[in-house]
Amino acid sequence: MLKRPISVPARWTVSAIFDFTERRQPHWDTPSRMTASALTLSSPVTPDFPAWFAGRLHENVFDVHRVPFSELSGWDFHPETGNLAHESGRYFSVEGLAVHAGPGGAHLWSQPILDQPDIAILGILAKDFDGELHFLMQAKAEPGNLNGLQLSPTVQATPSNYTRIHRGGATPYVDYFVDRRRHTVLVDVLQSEQGAWFLRKRNRNMIVEVHEDVPVLPNFCWLTLGQIHDLLHTPNMINMDARTVLSCVPFGEPPGSPAVPRVADDSFRAAVRRSARHTDGLRELTSWLTEARCRHAPLVRRIPLRDVDGWHRTEQEIRHRDGRHFSVLGVAVTTSHREVRSWTQPLLAPAGTGLAGLVVSEVDGELRLLVRADVRPGYSEGAEIGPTVQDQGGEADEQARFRHLLFAPETRVRYDVELSEEGGRFHHARTRYLIAEVEPEAAGELPDDYRWATTGQLQALVAHPRYLNIEARTLLGCLQTLW
Amino acid sequence: MLKRPISVPARWTVSAIFDFTERRQPHWDTPSRMTASALTLSSPVTPDFPAWFAGRLHENVFDVHRVPFSELSGWDFHPETGNLAHESGRYFSVEGLAVHAGPGGAHLWSQPILDQPDIAILGILAKDFDGELHFLMQAKAEPGNLNGLQLSPTVQATPSNYTRIHRGGATPYVDYFVDRRRHTVLVDVLQSEQGAWFLRKRNRNMIVEVHEDVPVLPNFCWLTLGQIHDLLHTPNMINMDARTVLSCVPFGEPPGSPAVPRVADDSFRAAVRRSARHTDGLRELTSWLTEARCRHAPLVRRIPLRDVDGWHRTEQEIRHRDGRHFSVLGVAVTTSHREVRSWTQPLLAPAGTGLAGLVVSEVDGELRLLVRADVRPGYSEGAEIGPTVQDQGGEADEQARFRHLLFAPETRVRYDVELSEEGGRFHHARTRYLIAEVEPEAAGELPDDYRWATTGQLQALVAHPRYLNIEARTLLGCLQTLW
Repeated sequence: MLKRPISVPARWTVSAIFDFTERRQPHWDTPSRMTASALTLSSPVTPDFPAWFAGRLHENVFDVHRVPFSELSGWDFHPETGNLAHESGRYFSVEGLAVHAGPGGAHLWSQPILDQPDIAILGILAKDFDGELHFLMQAKAEPGNLNGLQLSPTVQATPSNYTRIHRGGATPYVDYFVDRRRHTVLVDVLQSEQGAWFLRKRNRNMIVEVHEDVPVLPNFCWLTLGQIHDLLHTPNMINMDARTVLSCVPFGEPPGSPAVPRVADDSFRAAVRRSARHTDGLRELTSWLTEARCRHAPLVRRIPLRDVDGWHRTEQEIRHRDGRHFSVLGVAVTTSHREVRSWTQPLLAPAGTGLAGLVVSEVDGELRLLVRADVRPGYSEGAEIGPTVQDQGGEADEQARFRHLLFAPETRVRYDVELSEEGGRFHHARTRYLIAEVEPEAAGELPDDYRWATTGQLQALVAHPRYLNIEARTLLGCLQTLW
Repeated sequence: MLKRPISVPARWTVSAIFDFTERRQPHWDTPSRMTASALTLSSPVTPDFPAWFAGRLHENVFDVHRVPFSELSGWDFHPETGNLAHESGRYFSVEGLAVHAGPGGAHLWSQPILDQPDIAILGILAKDFDGELHFLMQAKAEPGNLNGLQLSPTVQATPSNYTRIHRGGATPYVDYFVDRRRHTVLVDVLQSEQGAWFLRKRNRNMIVEVHEDVPVLPNFCWLTLGQIHDLLHTPNMINMDARTVLSCVPFGEPPGSPAVPRVADDSFRAAVRRSARHTDGLRELTSWLTEARCRHAPLVRRIPLRDVDGWHRTEQEIRHRDGRHFSVLGVAVTTSHREVRSWTQPLLAPAGTGLAGLVVSEVDGELRLLVRADVRPGYSEGAEIGPTVQDQGGEADEQARFRHLLFAPETRVRYDVELSEEGGRFHHARTRYLIAEVEPEAAGELPDDYRWATTGQLQALVAHPRYLNIEARTLLGCLQTLW
């Protein structure tokens, strides 16, 4: 197998990874094994990825075109509420939401929102090959993907999928996640999704290690975490579901690494590693979030979709009167490989490309991340920890100062890749994910909603539900590729 | 100051607390300081509690009597929905809730429920006197208390209180919790309350240490944690709000204690301490809860109170047709000491005394607690960790086997005290809290919803929101009194 310490990409230096003079015994707990896999760039069981993926693109015919709402099969607008829902009562619905400043407080706005009470499994199978963890990834088409196939978890399955409500075959591999008795659960946590688009949505993020032979179906392949990390630098390749699961990976010291990176090592990578080791101060960080959750406690109420202000419905879409935020539209899908060969469904189409920018800075040789309490009506706890700047189209004036910082000439860009949001619900939803390093004093005095955190603190919190929002989780995963 | 190691209550032996031959240097982090305070039974700044409390009972005139709904001032049933709410839109409302098996699933039941979206501060002030942490407790009357005064946190304040919506004086001491710049936050976490009675309720549990002189108002006194723990053995003395805050106290090794209790020490107390030290295995425990949250994912929807099945409203109360579960009634209150001297309000009155029983067992010298995934429609995450048996009147047939175990002749009862639920919302709501030790094999094979946990694991989880329900938190606090 090819290891990072042997063949390191140009952007890293070997000395930044290991100080070979201070080897320790490896300890094979889960975090260490994850890190070891992240340092492995090839293995005998993994394919030549570009050729494999090109083959998948060739094999998987996937046709999506827009249709008016009247051509959505099984989907109807409720005669009284105007809500858009499936006749089975499952999948998801488009409803209305009214947001008030608080109990008895002023009406702030109303909007359409997706309601999907089912909890989906987003599961990645892991398996040890020759002492190294590999992950079974899937080339999967979704109707909202702008590029057809993206690399996805082994399983994305709602209860509708595995109870076969749409009469297709069962989702492959889902049994490994449903009946886990012979396997080892490495990650299993409920996490939220976009709080501006989903009402109290949560999915089950899982990594399950199997200790038996696993058949590899077409469209699936084993990859090391190092290979997946490299693919996170390819635009719109690793899908949102894979990113949220991977963000929950516990990271630790790679085997053979020194207890503390050499003090003389002033590389960015060394600063990230020192930050990952810094896990104390959690009580202060969670107290800051608790305070923000109390300071911003909007009152959120479902309302009929037809009562939402400022939005109107045509035969083709539900849209904001100024064209802002997003629209809801219908698509018809025909596929060569999915369990159901054709279907129709609504999708939410964001008005523009999103921006999720994380300002980072090195303090005492340790990377600090500037996080923000992100308040969205769809978060069941009101606020979650988000990146410094988060903008899904036109909002967030109060973030202007930090947005400016992201793009200032003296800022060092550490990660800048466009990634897609979930193509099963969103139409061509793209976000520019940016990690930008600044001098510590450049951020100035912080407003109450902003705070410095370490990578280690965020990794500790992502083991629990509803602390980090999906954008912060994605950026935490992206930062791990720079480790 | 009187210390437990010097004067130990009859139920403990000195050898169970310390092995004096193995003293370590004390480390004065927060958990150690909490434990040290828990071992302190008197101090120069604390009053003679029985005399002080008798004085408070004498001073505080508090008259509560039932009134028909028509005499509730400012509270009205909405003409269309039948919901009972205050004209200001604040405080709380009584609404209807429909519970379905899941999206598209069968209707299970409907019920009235209290909706209180405001987040209250439940805050206890802490201060160091002569090296020992003390806590400022309040003798506070609430309209639903069956015995008038109970011992409460320094502050119980909703935003209505501290924004003075009911035109009284500001809540004393609340500024310490709102502006914490000069103080140290020891506990700050949002926690749920009764999921059968409240819809997605959460309160902010805080302990703030002050480093300045604090005036002690009438009805307030400083107590050590050891004194509070002793009072937890008095029925209906420590109110629910104080209990939930105290349950979040991080406990550690008392100063001067050995790293490991002597192996020869087979006392119950030593087993509790070993259990508190056992904090690994958290990933397996949270995965078990995640699985339960997915297995039981009821679909919960607000409905108009007038559409709730099987409940009816009279001039005096809203009650279940069989008299089960609870009723909603009105009271008029006159008081000599509160910021508002008289008011009327609705209260929820449970149909009977509740039971919260925790089965514990010693395995390898370490106490294990048998917890249960408790599913209630009011939990925003669907399920939280509850005690082995939890019954608020007539439900829970599937718990019969474990209920039997609680009261079996060979079971050793370690704690058995009746405590009150929150008297600001509930009328004479009492729960019998029971900790019962059995032989490990007595529990038999566990259904999926049950699992053994350690005290240390639960203490780690209570630092985060919505893991432990209010009954489990209370019992965790009660178990700390046996440490």
